[in-house]
Amino acid sequence: MNEVQIEEIIRNTLSPQRFTHVCGVVAAADRLAQRFHVERQQARLAAWIHDYAREWPVDRWYEVAKERNIPEEFLSVAQVLHGPIVAEMMGELFDLEDADIANAVRYHTTGRVGMSELEKVVCLADYIEAGRTFPGVEDLREKAEHDLDLALASAFDGTIRHLLDKQASIFPLTVLARNDLWQRIKNKRTR
Amino acid sequence: MNEVQIEEIIRNTLSPQRFTHVCGVVAAADRLAQRFHVERQQARLAAWIHDYAREWPVDRWYEVAKERNIPEEFLSVAQVLHGPIVAEMMGELFDLEDADIANAVRYHTTGRVGMSELEKVVCLADYIEAGRTFPGVEDLREKAEHDLDLALASAFDGTIRHLLDKQASIFPLTVLARNDLWQRIKNKRTR
Repeated sequence: MNEVQIEEIIRNTLSPQRFTHVCGVVAAADRLAQRFHVERQQARLAAWIHDYAREWPVDRWYEVAKERNIPEEFLSVAQVLHGPIVAEMMGELFDLEDADIANAVRYHTTGRVGMSELEKVVCLADYIEAGRTFPGVEDLREKAEHDLDLALASAFDGTIRHLLDKQASIFPLTVLARNDLWQRIKNKRTR
Repeated sequence: MNEVQIEEIIRNTLSPQRFTHVCGVVAAADRLAQRFHVERQQARLAAWIHDYAREWPVDRWYEVAKERNIPEEFLSVAQVLHGPIVAEMMGELFDLEDADIANAVRYHTTGRVGMSELEKVVCLADYIEAGRTFPGVEDLREKAEHDLDLALASAFDGTIRHLLDKQASIFPLTVLARNDLWQRIKNKRTR
């Protein structure tokens, strides 16, 4: 399946608002991929499909998560399930077989320890695409001009602060992901 | 071994500064235990011994952690090892056999999901004892007057914010512990 065909499926699956967001993520992922020497086509494809299951009802997320043996670590917060679900289904849905794209989709909401450059690009693109307006997004866009790890670590920290403010659950994978990124940033600084 | 004998061992093991801190934790744990209907003697004993291994060199923490099969989840941050180590050794050291005291000691730095009331009392006492002066401690003391879960969840969130500010590693057990406490607080509010 080529990119145009995949885009068509996404357009027909998502609400216009969500589709506009996805277009923004594709554009941002493309720019980040060029800037940080990641394969553009992988970044664009991962971005197109990343939110395919985002608008499903919660029951369907859990049903498919069970069918597909989505790991336990994703089951505590419903809003992170759509990534792993699309990663499991992308072969059937889009005839796509690419482990790095699958991981970029799987971990786009949460991050994880040891993210690939493609995973970072897609995750960061989702934070900074042109439609995003949350406080601090301009700072992230500025950091994303020159340092992928710093921008993404700061993005995760912003999410954690936001969840602290709301007294809401913080997803442990995201904490492990930002610990790992800050450790890498420190190692780079002391080299 | 009675409490006076245990206190004597602690006094002879720790620096004067640390011993003063421990005395503060015993006093705070005793007060919290009375306030929240926890067995005072358990709270006092856990408080006396909780920092027994706190001043060991890092190498010794890791050596004993290996000997005692301290679980993997504690090994990523050296500063949380002293709790599990003392929990494993308290039978030999103080002739103490009490699973709830052991867990209060084991998890006093990190917290965990499903903390017992004794665990919460000891952990919170460590935050608010009279010698503590960090920003926000007065607010925690005020909360600790009437709500153990709220005070401890706020204490953990303060630790997480502090670690975010320092771009330092956040211990995942602490995140899971505060998620669990805030969930319990919400369940109480909606009941």
